[in-house]
Amino acid sequence: MDLAGVFVFGLSGGTLAVRHRLDLFGVLVLSLAAALAGGVFRDLLIGAVPPASLQDDRYLLAALASGFAAFFFHPQINRLGKPVMVLDAAGLGLFAVAGCGKALAFGVGPLPAALLASLTACGGGAMRDLLVAEVPRVLREEIYALAALLGAAIVIAGQALKLPDLPVAVTAVLAVFILRVVSVLRGWSAPRAPGS
Amino acid sequence: MDLAGVFVFGLSGGTLAVRHRLDLFGVLVLSLAAALAGGVFRDLLIGAVPPASLQDDRYLLAALASGFAAFFFHPQINRLGKPVMVLDAAGLGLFAVAGCGKALAFGVGPLPAALLASLTACGGGAMRDLLVAEVPRVLREEIYALAALLGAAIVIAGQALKLPDLPVAVTAVLAVFILRVVSVLRGWSAPRAPGS
Amino acid sequence: MDLAGVFVFGLSGGTLAVRHRLDLFGVLVLSLAAALAGGVFRDLLIGAVPPASLQDDRYLLAALASGFAAFFFHPQINRLGKPVMVLDAAGLGLFAVAGCGKALAFGVGPLPAALLASLTACGGGAMRDLLVAEVPRVLREEIYALAALLGAAIVIAGQALKLPDLPVAVTAVLAVFILRVVSVLRGWSAPRAPGS
Repeated sequence: MDLAGVFVFGLSGGTLAVRHRLDLFGVLVLSLAAALAGGVFRDLLIGAVPPASLQDDRYLLAALASGFAAFFFHPQINRLGKPVMVLDAAGLGLFAVAGCGKALAFGVGPLPAALLASLTACGGGAMRDLLVAEVPRVLREEIYALAALLGAAIVIAGQALKLPDLPVAVTAVLAVFILRVVSVLRGWSAPRAPGS
Repeated sequence: MDLAGVFVFGLSGGTLAVRHRLDLFGVLVLSLAAALAGGVFRDLLIGAVPPASLQDDRYLLAALASGFAAFFFHPQINRLGKPVMVLDAAGLGLFAVAGCGKALAFGVGPLPAALLASLTACGGGAMRDLLVAEVPRVLREEIYALAALLGAAIVIAGQALKLPDLPVAVTAVLAVFILRVVSVLRGWSAPRAPGS
Repeated sequence: MDLAGVFVFGLSGGTLAVRHRLDLFGVLVLSLAAALAGGVFRDLLIGAVPPASLQDDRYLLAALASGFAAFFFHPQINRLGKPVMVLDAAGLGLFAVAGCGKALAFGVGPLPAALLASLTACGGGAMRDLLVAEVPRVLREEIYALAALLGAAIVIAGQALKLPDLPVAVTAVLAVFILRVVSVLRGWSAPRAPGS
């Protein structure tokens, strides 16, 4: 499951790189960044070094595989708009909930844990966009980070109420997934500043 | 005092985000980045993890409050050019002096401590600008980083001469503040390369 | 040797900064970033804090010296296209091989070590380009990162075969250097995605 999230996030980096006409190395770097940078940032901030993705080769291999897939099959992937969005929403939920759980396990308080959950889920996409000199999409559009924060809030509430971990985590992932998918289908977005 | 610096730095991030038409989440992220990224970078580099701003919720709350303030009151804040500049100069001094002191306390030598002081004071603003895909203003304009380096130099000289900490710190903050405010009022800027 | 690599990488940052009309502080920051950010990223990821360049002032001094050199002598440096490219290729080899060796010594596996070698060698240049809001050149053009990966592969193969360290390291640096110089002279570049 986790590796599927890495792969889908990696595809988003790889296809963006192809659209920017980067070379093979650039495509792989954007896949690695989109798939793994969020978790790496979280691990650096909580002092969990080396980061998980440098200790278990399956993460790097999944991210590299997504880069090669984007390199060779980008027209087909771009045509799969909806399925990719659905998988991405699943990845968002998994990353946010896993990120929040790991931050809490390292003794971080609830407020920073929610931010670290959001960083885990959204940091890779932000790094991906920054590497091609674009303003990160997560800062501009759609209910993306807010869905991640909702997942974190459920995990934190579950811990505070001493509910069992697994059902809480499943509920949180589903809540993120549903909020994200519905918000895309309905075209919801986060509010802009009044008068901006 | 410290929290006032965080709040003013956060305002600079939030109002920039509103000007770039980011959504509420983007405004909060830019406030957090502008207010806290400099200290986070310093803490990562000296091995002080988790960073101070993840251990004491008041920093996060002050930065988030500045984001909400920018979101709802950006026209009023933009009209307050001078007062915001003066508060920002005070924040610059506080951040530079606190950053230098913390780096020295972690056993870093004087030259890297001066750079870390400058990173603490200017890194947040640089991150803020990078997130909206702009060249950081601190690299282009005005006496900003140089004022931070002056503060660091005073702290380092004070330690080398074994002067008492508090008066040295106050002198350093005042020196940064005065140099920054005077340089803005007089329109001073750092030199450009000859023939560039 | 190592310091020569730092100096040449720093020149690439300083001259880019002058071209973007940054002020003296901006020129020094881009020299520091180009020269040292790759090694700093590697050290953060493997948990070697404070990074090497903050513990030995000669690295900072070499990077700052390259910034001043770029500030005052940028027209002359720009005219030296070929010699600077040759020195840069030497720096690339040294950084990749040293980066790989340090990652392996910290107990990282071969696949992440190869990526960290590439990050050590290319991360500074990427940071340099990001600071002036450009897509990193290493993602778009030429055999640069691939040469670094070749060097890492030789170091890793040498360790796996238990060959003596020094001759392997020398071979690896030479291989990177030759591949990079030949690829520039012949105009080779990494492949683009089919149909992109």
